[in-house]
Amino acid sequence: MTEYKTVTPEILDKLTKIVDSKYVINDSERMEPYSHDEHTDPKYIKYPEAVVMPATAEEIAAIVKLANQENIPIVPRGAGTGLASAAVPFKGGIVLSLERMNQILEIDEQNMIMVVQPGMTTGDVQKAANEKGFLYAGDPCSADSSSIGGNVATNAGGNKAVKYGTTRQQVLGVEIVTAQGDIITLGGKCKKNSTGYSLLNLIIGSEGTLGIITKIYLKLVALPKNVMDLLAVFPDLKTAIDIVPKIMSAGITPVCVEFMDNQAIRCCEEFLREKLPHSDNGFYIIVSVEGDSEENLEDQCCTIDELCSENGALTVLVADPVKIWKARKSFAEADRAKSLVYSAEDLVVPMDQIPYTIEKIAELGAKYGFTIHCAGHAGDGNIHANILKETMSDADWSAKLPALQNEIYEIVYSVGGKLSGEHGIGYKRVPLMEKFCDPAELDMMRAIKQALDPNLILNPGKIFEYK
Amino acid sequence: MTEYKTVTPEILDKLTKIVDSKYVINDSERMEPYSHDEHTDPKYIKYPEAVVMPATAEEIAAIVKLANQENIPIVPRGAGTGLASAAVPFKGGIVLSLERMNQILEIDEQNMIMVVQPGMTTGDVQKAANEKGFLYAGDPCSADSSSIGGNVATNAGGNKAVKYGTTRQQVLGVEIVTAQGDIITLGGKCKKNSTGYSLLNLIIGSEGTLGIITKIYLKLVALPKNVMDLLAVFPDLKTAIDIVPKIMSAGITPVCVEFMDNQAIRCCEEFLREKLPHSDNGFYIIVSVEGDSEENLEDQCCTIDELCSENGALTVLVADPVKIWKARKSFAEADRAKSLVYSAEDLVVPMDQIPYTIEKIAELGAKYGFTIHCAGHAGDGNIHANILKETMSDADWSAKLPALQNEIYEIVYSVGGKLSGEHGIGYKRVPLMEKFCDPAELDMMRAIKQALDPNLILNPGKIFEYK
Repeated sequence: MTEYKTVTPEILDKLTKIVDSKYVINDSERMEPYSHDEHTDPKYIKYPEAVVMPATAEEIAAIVKLANQENIPIVPRGAGTGLASAAVPFKGGIVLSLERMNQILEIDEQNMIMVVQPGMTTGDVQKAANEKGFLYAGDPCSADSSSIGGNVATNAGGNKAVKYGTTRQQVLGVEIVTAQGDIITLGGKCKKNSTGYSLLNLIIGSEGTLGIITKIYLKLVALPKNVMDLLAVFPDLKTAIDIVPKIMSAGITPVCVEFMDNQAIRCCEEFLREKLPHSDNGFYIIVSVEGDSEENLEDQCCTIDELCSENGALTVLVADPVKIWKARKSFAEADRAKSLVYSAEDLVVPMDQIPYTIEKIAELGAKYGFTIHCAGHAGDGNIHANILKETMSDADWSAKLPALQNEIYEIVYSVGGKLSGEHGIGYKRVPLMEKFCDPAELDMMRAIKQALDPNLILNPGKIFEYK
Repeated sequence: MTEYKTVTPEILDKLTKIVDSKYVINDSERMEPYSHDEHTDPKYIKYPEAVVMPATAEEIAAIVKLANQENIPIVPRGAGTGLASAAVPFKGGIVLSLERMNQILEIDEQNMIMVVQPGMTTGDVQKAANEKGFLYAGDPCSADSSSIGGNVATNAGGNKAVKYGTTRQQVLGVEIVTAQGDIITLGGKCKKNSTGYSLLNLIIGSEGTLGIITKIYLKLVALPKNVMDLLAVFPDLKTAIDIVPKIMSAGITPVCVEFMDNQAIRCCEEFLREKLPHSDNGFYIIVSVEGDSEENLEDQCCTIDELCSENGALTVLVADPVKIWKARKSFAEADRAKSLVYSAEDLVVPMDQIPYTIEKIAELGAKYGFTIHCAGHAGDGNIHANILKETMSDADWSAKLPALQNEIYEIVYSVGGKLSGEHGIGYKRVPLMEKFCDPAELDMMRAIKQALDPNLILNPGKIFEYK
């Protein structure tokens, strides 16, 4: 076990020689926002010893070199909207916030590439692309608040992943500061690359443990000409979920196929104070489709309408996109309003295993006495199951939640699923990772971490335990 | 520098305890096909000390464990159709041929996934997908002869990469035998995954240096309903290549935009003994498009036709797909027929840098007195420049080729390009890799190799040098 040093006044002094002193924080009150992410369980709060806000890769390189010399952990942080406590400094040390690095560096229309700094919000990236007539296809529900750097670090998924893939598929290159404090560019503006190991793809999803992302090359695509959202309402869980593989294999490529169970719908309705269709007894399947022409869009919608109607839908509506997406995207916030403490599971299973998995989760919720709201990206097998604490005692919560999670992931892994589809492992899921990930695979991850960051300076204690 | 042991009669005996003796070869004549790949320069021929042909991952695991104990290199080999000598045993040892592992394990229509063994040819994968109404979108020019395992190991690109991505984007999971002889599955049937480091993406493109691929989970997509190939003929290099970024940013997503220069066309015509359109003075741009409907297909073709006509095309033809692809795919073979020894460069640049790069290559060819035929996947910036030896003396070839390559890659790197778009680094490009790859990036690759394969057993001497 590595013993880290603490941030002394001397270290703070050295930090202010790298970054202007107003961007080095160590008073408690101002550090509070950096002591947690969106995961609200008090167990996952930990104050940093200092927060620094560098403005350049060179400053970051200098901070990383200092941290190596002094043996102090560095925790890179985007907007702090994660749900797995990946950006919280559980081993102490310095939180390195990328909030000041929030600029567009280039929109290269010819090559259809946007180069941005990591602290930019994903929503701003999307808007800037739209303004030039392009689509940035990464679209996590948190887009308006999450940072693009955080999206890359967790390989965020979101609402367009069925058609366009997750963040990984949008990223052509990154500049990083390595654990040694070197500044290197992996990938770049080339659309293809087979020049040695794909360190780019290793960095994507590595949650700040292998390098600090300081610049991102994003792929842009043509703005879709015609878009439509359909809302199919089903009378029960099984009928709703059973439609998902049917839609996916019908020869159309929807942008997304989303799912909300009835409790999630009601919870969002209450939170938004806005009537949602069939909220009394409905289960939602939301399908977005894009078409080159209106005819083509209509053809796709007809196919989906027929499929849903033939397979038990109560109704199929052309959805008000603003309203329906506001509801879908408020899922996490609505649950937080209902129960400040909750656990956001982010499991992923092969598509055809969704019905079985969700049914089992419902059964387990009943068995353990938890309210579990399910919604998620059903089209790619990624289900968010929010387990609410509500009025449960802390002792019960601490005892029963891990037992429930163990049973859930026994099922998930038995059908070929994984712990996380898009949130990452962070700190929160380390015990589950140690239990469910193949030990030989875990050993490979540990060996890579040790090889690239021998002092274990970068975001230690995340993804897995060190041996 | 690691000192490896040789394959003694005792080792051969141990190998035959793992694999039936008829699948352990060590006579020269039968080992000849395993002494080289498609790269025909005699400098890149090296006979193995033994060839083994295992049938299962378990047998491979046993061979890898033996190799670790005895300190003998193992070189995994698919169909041997590589162009960078990645599958040739330059450090001696055992060639591990995957040719017997050539079966489809499962076609999962519900999840649109095919699970195959690595020794299957890519063409057979494509056919099997088509028979079930799906498309396997990986499509290297070598599809009929290359193996799917080799495609994954080099992250092969090919003729559909503009729309569908390279092999990396088609692979959802692999089973590998690690350098320690463990059998593990990375990824699988899930469409999304953020569960720790993406070892899957590290293995893809690692050319057999980090693990031996024994099973592959491939994504299938819906078969396109309507497909058309257009052949636009241009009067000169510059006019032809200048159209590429224009097509790419016209708001359509072609499946591919291919390029052949006039010398390449004539060379293919001669090889195929078949008249090709405008072969006297034409430069080809081949564009494939897919459409949901015939109208949509026609719209796209009209846009391309107009663009090409407005920008100097001599003619735009609806191409006979069989004929035009036979010509395009015979590029390597035709050059080999003309000059048994040639160097197949596989450079990749940002799309808008293609015209400049190809012009510079033509100038450099003239300067050094080489015939260079250019063709390639212009739509993703990947240019194959075949440098022909023809009647040049061995001494001249050995002296002038590296000088030419250095000048070519100075240009390629100055515009943000890379050494390889789809062939990989192998053995052939190691000196260029050491010269042009960022030293800090190279050190990271070396550190990963050392961490995952500390005895440097798996395909040593490839991608980079050890320190």
